[in-house]
Amino acid sequence: MIFYSYDEFSKDVEVMARDLQSFGCDTIIAIARGGMTLGHFLAEHMSIRNLYSLNSVHYDNQKKLEYIKVYNIPDLSKSKKVVIVDDIIDSGETMYEITLLLKKRFPEVEFKNAAIFYKPNSLIKPDFAVKEAKGWIEFFWSKAEN
Amino acid sequence: MIFYSYDEFSKDVEVMARDLQSFGCDTIIAIARGGMTLGHFLAEHMSIRNLYSLNSVHYDNQKKLEYIKVYNIPDLSKSKKVVIVDDIIDSGETMYEITLLLKKRFPEVEFKNAAIFYKPNSLIKPDFAVKEAKGWIEFFWSKAEN
Repeated sequence: MIFYSYDEFSKDVEVMARDLQSFGCDTIIAIARGGMTLGHFLAEHMSIRNLYSLNSVHYDNQKKLEYIKVYNIPDLSKSKKVVIVDDIIDSGETMYEITLLLKKRFPEVEFKNAAIFYKPNSLIKPDFAVKEAKGWIEFFWSKAEN
Repeated sequence: MIFYSYDEFSKDVEVMARDLQSFGCDTIIAIARGGMTLGHFLAEHMSIRNLYSLNSVHYDNQKKLEYIKVYNIPDLSKSKKVVIVDDIIDSGETMYEITLLLKKRFPEVEFKNAAIFYKPNSLIKPDFAVKEAKGWIEFFWSKAEN
């Protein structure tokens, strides 16, 4: 288990904010819950006022096919370049489904995705990532006191 | 100018999460951008999966009456007790308008609001708050490096 601290995060946010400048996004969508703090920090550091979130739930019913439900989708009709952010791209399924759905619903919008951590064998490679996940990560936002 | 650090925040989150237990909420709505990190931390600490956000913009056109537009309102049809969170309740106008609108749209839902900082002369008193704002606060999420 690797503990990911606030100090490490604040350095990684700087790196990611700098990397994202090349994309020139006008909107950030945070995938709840994991992407919320990262989305907030990026929006503040990049002076982006359009900070939205969306929700997803992974249904894994053994009787039916598994599927991912995406809801509370923000209105992107005025956005041009959107970055979808999460804390970690693990299997990649959630990010894959969300990106696919948003591209279908908003065909005029250019989407990129970003995560602090990625895994080399995930379904999709993130457009922007800071470091490889080499084990189970405990993020500082889920840290229980003591 | 008062700098509000991550260390102080992580203590305040514990206090607020404990206080909120009495309300027994099933959903957290973070007001973007300021409420996003707080909403995320509270959801993690209280094991609440329903973490949503919404957006608002304060129009202050001198030719027209000023008004607050609220958008990207999440679906609360399955929620019973909702806490609306922001970093600070300053004038209180934003929280007032958002609460009013959500109560109208979801009359079956019980709403409370929470903020880390409050001001004694704001339009509404927060149901849950940790400390009084005694000056301009710079939050750690908006801190520029160096």
